[in-house]
Amino acid sequence: MNDYESMWERLNLDLDAHAALLEVLGKFYGDIYMSQTGRLKGMEYLDFVLSEVHGLRIKELQDAKAGGKKVIGTFCVFVPEELVLAASGIQVGLCAGAEAGRGEAEKILPRNTCALIKSFVGFKLSRLCPYIESCDLVVGETTCDGKKKAYEMFAEYAPVYVMEIPQMKNRCDRELWKAEVLRFKDRVEEVTGNRITASGLKEAIRIVNARRRALQRLNRLRAAAPVPISGRDVLLINQISFYDDPQRFTAKVGELCDELESRVGTGQGIVSEETPRLMLSGCPMAVPNWKLPYIVESSGAVIVGEESCIGTRNTRDLVDEGAGTLEAMLDAIVDRYMRIDCACFTPNTERLEHIVQMAGDLRVRGVIHYALSFCQPYAMEAYKVEKALKAKGLPVLTIETDYGMEDVEQLKTRVEAFVEMLH
Amino acid sequence: MNDYESMWERLNLDLDAHAALLEVLGKFYGDIYMSQTGRLKGMEYLDFVLSEVHGLRIKELQDAKAGGKKVIGTFCVFVPEELVLAASGIQVGLCAGAEAGRGEAEKILPRNTCALIKSFVGFKLSRLCPYIESCDLVVGETTCDGKKKAYEMFAEYAPVYVMEIPQMKNRCDRELWKAEVLRFKDRVEEVTGNRITASGLKEAIRIVNARRRALQRLNRLRAAAPVPISGRDVLLINQISFYDDPQRFTAKVGELCDELESRVGTGQGIVSEETPRLMLSGCPMAVPNWKLPYIVESSGAVIVGEESCIGTRNTRDLVDEGAGTLEAMLDAIVDRYMRIDCACFTPNTERLEHIVQMAGDLRVRGVIHYALSFCQPYAMEAYKVEKALKAKGLPVLTIETDYGMEDVEQLKTRVEAFVEMLH
Repeated sequence: MNDYESMWERLNLDLDAHAALLEVLGKFYGDIYMSQTGRLKGMEYLDFVLSEVHGLRIKELQDAKAGGKKVIGTFCVFVPEELVLAASGIQVGLCAGAEAGRGEAEKILPRNTCALIKSFVGFKLSRLCPYIESCDLVVGETTCDGKKKAYEMFAEYAPVYVMEIPQMKNRCDRELWKAEVLRFKDRVEEVTGNRITASGLKEAIRIVNARRRALQRLNRLRAAAPVPISGRDVLLINQISFYDDPQRFTAKVGELCDELESRVGTGQGIVSEETPRLMLSGCPMAVPNWKLPYIVESSGAVIVGEESCIGTRNTRDLVDEGAGTLEAMLDAIVDRYMRIDCACFTPNTERLEHIVQMAGDLRVRGVIHYALSFCQPYAMEAYKVEKALKAKGLPVLTIETDYGMEDVEQLKTRVEAFVEMLH
Repeated sequence: MNDYESMWERLNLDLDAHAALLEVLGKFYGDIYMSQTGRLKGMEYLDFVLSEVHGLRIKELQDAKAGGKKVIGTFCVFVPEELVLAASGIQVGLCAGAEAGRGEAEKILPRNTCALIKSFVGFKLSRLCPYIESCDLVVGETTCDGKKKAYEMFAEYAPVYVMEIPQMKNRCDRELWKAEVLRFKDRVEEVTGNRITASGLKEAIRIVNARRRALQRLNRLRAAAPVPISGRDVLLINQISFYDDPQRFTAKVGELCDELESRVGTGQGIVSEETPRLMLSGCPMAVPNWKLPYIVESSGAVIVGEESCIGTRNTRDLVDEGAGTLEAMLDAIVDRYMRIDCACFTPNTERLEHIVQMAGDLRVRGVIHYALSFCQPYAMEAYKVEKALKAKGLPVLTIETDYGMEDVEQLKTRVEAFVEMLH
């Protein structure tokens, strides 16, 4: 038994099922990622981090916990990481991108539940996620009915805390959200045992903003023609941003961007300039949900943007750094998170504007709208997204799927036909 | 062309399709309602109102509109009728209980949308609902993802206004809800052209409370053993409470309760005392969604309670009548509606407590939990409802269905087996 195995055993994972999961993940990663040619040298760090997703990073969390730090897990970009960092906590995104544990999840969840929710419940019930098992607090939110009600059940198995996300953007919503941010601050202080100070929060805002700026730079660089990096690789970078150490990650993305910059300078692309440029829009794709990007990039197109929580929705807005007092910083955090254009808001016209803007900036030939089956917010917004893009003359392919592999061939046929049409 | 037909034509209904709908409705009503024996004389009024659902009541609305009144349509028990009545408006529940127009609805809604939402969108797109066509304002709310996003689309076809319903019951939620009630008050005043005064609101509160009290009395009386009225008939009364004139309706329910009282006094039941008493719990059953109650009461059981929006959720709580000022009355309204135990809240333990309490008070032998397919809030709460009732030794049958007739035989088999088990 190696070191990791004894750690996983201490975390009470189902060792056999977990080993099988890692094996499948490794093979999947090899097929989808390592098979690419012309990758950036900077991706080696990401490959390494992913290969150690349940190993080294978990060991780091365990070591930090042994040193008195607390780990707070989340499923949503609304949870203000700044507060967790300011209290010397560690925030990690939790496992929700694989079908592992679906059978267990379906024992308590309706069949008509989206794959992401079944996944996080399944990971817990099947004892397959060392992140959940490392958490001192799991933070849910009310962004959709499915998650909202699933957290009630999840609370029977994990230390769950739920933040209420408003559904409109009027003054009373901003007030509710501020009350929720303050309630969360109290809870984070209680869990970590650390008071959040102005200087601590200032530094935390700087750290999280720096990561957002690094990812913004990545998104600007990849917009070049020819495209200097695959969509799959950028998705992976975004995925890893949710669980890697933020400062190390930011430095590494910076190095990767330097390399990218020189590629862009010499006009070097990973695909020819004629390759149709596409944008993905819709539901988040959590690790290891690489199904659709792989299909798209195996069908003669390249992805140049992800309008998604694991994408631009998480990196577009910075927290204003001008605030000096704790109170003003908290207000800046409240304002920044209220700008998120999640489908939980009604109406959510900002999202349509952002999508149209992105599609223009990235000079895409078409957009693929991606919704998980039974995700009502995104499936319903697809109607408006399609309308807004078609009004700009941009073709849209609307896809609804889950984490299963049964529909891969069918999706491939549809994507290929769409890409063919764009030539 | 009779008077109604020319009215329907003025309302731009699809006359042929509408005639076909009324024909089916009439037949359906005959089979399910008129076939019953031993009904109360007081049900004649309800039969009449239902037979005139698109006729006389619409004519009343049109006459009221000609006299300067405004009609406000709703889909939810959160919309405070007190404010509409205080501004001399008329509030009506809108058509959402039949499959008519499903094909049209599915052109803009995802297939994975609940039948109720498909129904109201379908009624509008197919021009089959004279209520929607009579509305000066249609009030939506954010109680579930499906409705929240569907109203955005619906707003392209009807004058939609959306109220935000909070998702928790903390102080900030009560403040948000109060802001929403005040925003709605302003809008009602604007649409009706009438200011809401303290005396007007006092009278409106009295009217709506009187209707709630009449329905509470009905629920107390039907709890007798043997059961003096069928569940179907009580459901119909609840359904009609949403669109009939409130004062006339209250008076008629009062007369029916007098009759019921003398039945209870003489121990007269509509079924034998051995008939298993069941309670329904879950999604609202809008007119003419009588499928499940009919199946249950044709399977040797009798329904003695509806834990539902079209049931006790709408009648349990009164607005406090002690308030003297407009401000205090508005606060009383805010408080009353915040007590609603809708599945949109997290957690929603009050609902579990109410269900257990009701099941005890009504001395039921079992509970049928009813969720519309793709209704995540109720489908997910079913898990907790089942757990809470089983802890009390009460069997639960969990049903997920829609408005279609394809599963009637399958449902009948399941219900019969459940009833059999209760003997």
